[in-house]
Amino acid sequence: MPTYKAPLTDMQFLLNDVFDASQLAKLPGYEEATPDMFQSILEEGAKLCEEVLLPINQSGDIEGCTFKDGVVTTPKGFKEAYETFTQGGWMGLSCSKEFGGQGLPLLLNFLLDEMVCSANLSFGMYPGLSHGAYNAIEKHGVQELKEKYLPKMVTGEWSGTMCLTEPHCGTDLGLIKTKAIPKGDGSYSISGTKIFISAGEQDLTENIIHLVLAKLPDAPPGVRGISLFLVPKFLVKDDGGIGARNGAVCGSIEHKMGIKASATCVMNFDNATGWLVGVPNKGMKAMFTMMNEARLAVGLQGLGIAEVAYQNGLSYAKDRLQGRGLKGAVFPDKVADPIIVHPDVRRMLLTMKSITEGARALAVWVGMNLDIETKHTDATTREEAGELVALLTPITKALMTDHGFDAANLAVQIMGGHGYIREYGVEQFVRDARITQIYEGTNGIQALDLVGRKMPERFGRMLRRFFWPCAEFIKENSSNPAFADILPNFAKTFQRFQMISLLMAQRSFANPEEAGAAATDYLRGFSLLVLGYMWLLMVKTAHGKLADASEKSFYESKLKTADFYFAKVLPEINARMMNIQAGSKPVMGMSADLF
Amino acid sequence: MPTYKAPLTDMQFLLNDVFDASQLAKLPGYEEATPDMFQSILEEGAKLCEEVLLPINQSGDIEGCTFKDGVVTTPKGFKEAYETFTQGGWMGLSCSKEFGGQGLPLLLNFLLDEMVCSANLSFGMYPGLSHGAYNAIEKHGVQELKEKYLPKMVTGEWSGTMCLTEPHCGTDLGLIKTKAIPKGDGSYSISGTKIFISAGEQDLTENIIHLVLAKLPDAPPGVRGISLFLVPKFLVKDDGGIGARNGAVCGSIEHKMGIKASATCVMNFDNATGWLVGVPNKGMKAMFTMMNEARLAVGLQGLGIAEVAYQNGLSYAKDRLQGRGLKGAVFPDKVADPIIVHPDVRRMLLTMKSITEGARALAVWVGMNLDIETKHTDATTREEAGELVALLTPITKALMTDHGFDAANLAVQIMGGHGYIREYGVEQFVRDARITQIYEGTNGIQALDLVGRKMPERFGRMLRRFFWPCAEFIKENSSNPAFADILPNFAKTFQRFQMISLLMAQRSFANPEEAGAAATDYLRGFSLLVLGYMWLLMVKTAHGKLADASEKSFYESKLKTADFYFAKVLPEINARMMNIQAGSKPVMGMSADLF
Repeated sequence: MPTYKAPLTDMQFLLNDVFDASQLAKLPGYEEATPDMFQSILEEGAKLCEEVLLPINQSGDIEGCTFKDGVVTTPKGFKEAYETFTQGGWMGLSCSKEFGGQGLPLLLNFLLDEMVCSANLSFGMYPGLSHGAYNAIEKHGVQELKEKYLPKMVTGEWSGTMCLTEPHCGTDLGLIKTKAIPKGDGSYSISGTKIFISAGEQDLTENIIHLVLAKLPDAPPGVRGISLFLVPKFLVKDDGGIGARNGAVCGSIEHKMGIKASATCVMNFDNATGWLVGVPNKGMKAMFTMMNEARLAVGLQGLGIAEVAYQNGLSYAKDRLQGRGLKGAVFPDKVADPIIVHPDVRRMLLTMKSITEGARALAVWVGMNLDIETKHTDATTREEAGELVALLTPITKALMTDHGFDAANLAVQIMGGHGYIREYGVEQFVRDARITQIYEGTNGIQALDLVGRKMPERFGRMLRRFFWPCAEFIKENSSNPAFADILPNFAKTFQRFQMISLLMAQRSFANPEEAGAAATDYLRGFSLLVLGYMWLLMVKTAHGKLADASEKSFYESKLKTADFYFAKVLPEINARMMNIQAGSKPVMGMSADLF
Repeated sequence: MPTYKAPLTDMQFLLNDVFDASQLAKLPGYEEATPDMFQSILEEGAKLCEEVLLPINQSGDIEGCTFKDGVVTTPKGFKEAYETFTQGGWMGLSCSKEFGGQGLPLLLNFLLDEMVCSANLSFGMYPGLSHGAYNAIEKHGVQELKEKYLPKMVTGEWSGTMCLTEPHCGTDLGLIKTKAIPKGDGSYSISGTKIFISAGEQDLTENIIHLVLAKLPDAPPGVRGISLFLVPKFLVKDDGGIGARNGAVCGSIEHKMGIKASATCVMNFDNATGWLVGVPNKGMKAMFTMMNEARLAVGLQGLGIAEVAYQNGLSYAKDRLQGRGLKGAVFPDKVADPIIVHPDVRRMLLTMKSITEGARALAVWVGMNLDIETKHTDATTREEAGELVALLTPITKALMTDHGFDAANLAVQIMGGHGYIREYGVEQFVRDARITQIYEGTNGIQALDLVGRKMPERFGRMLRRFFWPCAEFIKENSSNPAFADILPNFAKTFQRFQMISLLMAQRSFANPEEAGAAATDYLRGFSLLVLGYMWLLMVKTAHGKLADASEKSFYESKLKTADFYFAKVLPEINARMMNIQAGSKPVMGMSADLF
């Protein structure tokens, strides 16, 4: 069975040394969020993940969810783990105090999410979806709905879902057919079929609060005519108690490649009673509240998988004796050397490590800015933080989920045949990670979001939220000897990438297919640059800390890992830039019938 | 359920137009292997794959193999399909006539292998392993063994296995513990445990002929002390009939990520009677006969998966209506456009198509040279062909299996949520393909084989078997207008890659870790170059054929696909060359305890 230890040292390094998360405690409402508070909560969270969630991950995969007569049963131990989770108050960590939450920073939730997903991605889906639904109701629902539903969602007694996809439409929600007919009493009658609904039915909670996209009778066509409805599994009485069963029923669950302990449901809404959330026909806006948070959360799932995959690949590489170092025996007293002596095994490990740690830094950067966007007293600061988060959302989602999948595969590769069999539990990471590249908008859709929405936004203003601090860092540190080996080359690459961005913006203005054809290469290139910036920040901090004798090896490891990143990972950006320059013709030039 | 149509047109194009396989019929023993013969056999093979093997692929994955009391049961329909396969004579297609085979070119077997693995990779394992065992016995066994065992392996009544791996050793076979004690009657008593033995036990054949690596009592340590033994499941009487049960028993089967219909067995040898194949202590040499063929066969598995993944991704992309073209509606009369209008979907499809078709050309090139190496009357020609095959074996194995996995993942990505669920059958391709990057030497081992064995061989002589014809082609076609857009850039890349090869050879001479650290990048870069050369050959042929009105679209498709390859796939080589240039320090500079 795989092992896992939460990377608390790395998290503390990022929170305290690289980003100074203590500034969050200065924001109104976050006064309690001191570094000490962060540390003790993370330690508790780590324990929960290591001791409660990890032990039921592999068994949950093997057993899977079962479905019979509309009832979904989660695997053995999930109900108990969910109770431990909710009773520990983890569900409401960053939920509003008004509804019973602890009102702590979203950043803290980010780090918890990573750990939960390292330990048990399937489990993480249940609170994860609830959290998204909570957010949409809190931001867009009327006070009555909030008071009726949110407190029990915060305790975890009730859960939430997001019902978007239908059999004939996923990405293109303008095509949805689910109907909402006003019943005259302020409620609506909802009918239609939704598919791929995570946690649509389960045996963990007393009630399930579905958020459903549907069309009103007079709705304009396409995405401008979609509204969002709250549809509970059981109607809720005025006293808050459970009432009649509503017409929202699970028709079946999917057999999937992975996340088998997460129930993926076909949901049939048959004259189910629902209530409008937000403004009629503006459901997409409310949905994007959930979606943007969900995209970041999915990115963190990828990060979580990458971390646990690395840990298990590493431990195998240190234990497995096979062959000898290329320069001769490293441990002549053993029958063979551990495979970590081999350059190609190290290449795989360092690829995992350098991207995972860079991505964790990115998670902290985004999480902090999300908190600043939410709580800062200065409107301009809030706006700027929001723009950075908006820019980095598609990057976080695609980069981290692609990396989660890649890292899981590298762990399998290091373990060879043992990686491929079920017993060692690493192939599960590959299967579980695979969905993260798809749901909440495929990574191709993330790339289109970056080049089609974020890039042109106010003539590149969002891009500059990244380009400016990065340029400033380069300028400030150009004569810093700590960066002599790294910075000149990075600065050149950074310069070239900005020019490519300009080129793309120009070309795309004339022909949107130019943006489309370059999107994935651009997102990947941008991601590598962002990771590079994260590594620059970490190198600077680690250099300053090297004298600190007690943790010296931690900082040395950071510096060596950075060397690898700049020498062996970043160069991919050059191929990506060449692909972008090649334009859309090689992609669009072939008529569909020639495929 | 996935669909599949064998790519016969592409195969004929390669056989007849690009490579002129008709020359094989001039080799002694291959007189019957005319283009007509090729075509009719391929058509029959296609039918078998499409109609017999494909329909039991998905059901075989769901049912899997079962194990009880030493007996393995293959999934429903496998026994019948195996009978159809063997009764059609497919097992002996390229086996020697002396033992009842048809003695046809190995190239034909290559193309059959691709089709079989597109239709049903798990099924293909059973005849595939037999074929490897057949080869080793034919090349290294004494006449008595050959006459006793080979005829029934050719008919498929008996099957074969390769028993190498033990719990504590896979790559490093020098560590094996299985013992062989001479019994004084010319036979040996074999004892030990082997793991990951494909087809080690099954219910398809009357007998199973295990080829087992073991150590004689006086064997020198390490790989120089390994011998190869033939150990039948049932002893064979002098009249060829089935005798007593031998002590070779399946202890359990593995639960795996994929190829679930292929039984992966723990084999316990307990004083089993065996016979030496080849020379004592020279078992590795005999094993490499099997291994080299097996590596090429595994490459073809990757190619097969890539083809079927492409076909299914393409058909979804043409059928699925979702969103609109970026320049506006392409089919305004439909509710939405098929997703093949989207540049990013095309990028994925063209990546699959361009590498798959390039890889198929490579398969034909290698297969022909394997036949020339085997049958040509001129010793120098045989040697040169053998050197090319040796050089291209690790490239074929790693390139095609990495691509099979990537292509399967691209198909999943194109299909979104539908790709992730079992129903559509595409996620199975991902799981099945994953093992091909691992078995018969992980792709990291292939890379080491390339840089550590093939590259230094006689000061780069093997490399020149590729570099020379490629350089000649560039020279001959430098003023050919058909290549104006492609060749100048390719020639520059080719030049740079040769210089990088020289640099690597020099560095590695002083420090073998330089070769190790660059190995995977070098293999990948080399592969992209080889595919580039394949595309140059195809472009030249397709250009010459464009006037042929009846098949015009086929040739147009080739030219457009080539455009994509050179513009969007090949550039990766630049990042790979940068990685190689960065040397081994970023990989080896970190001590193991800092990971």
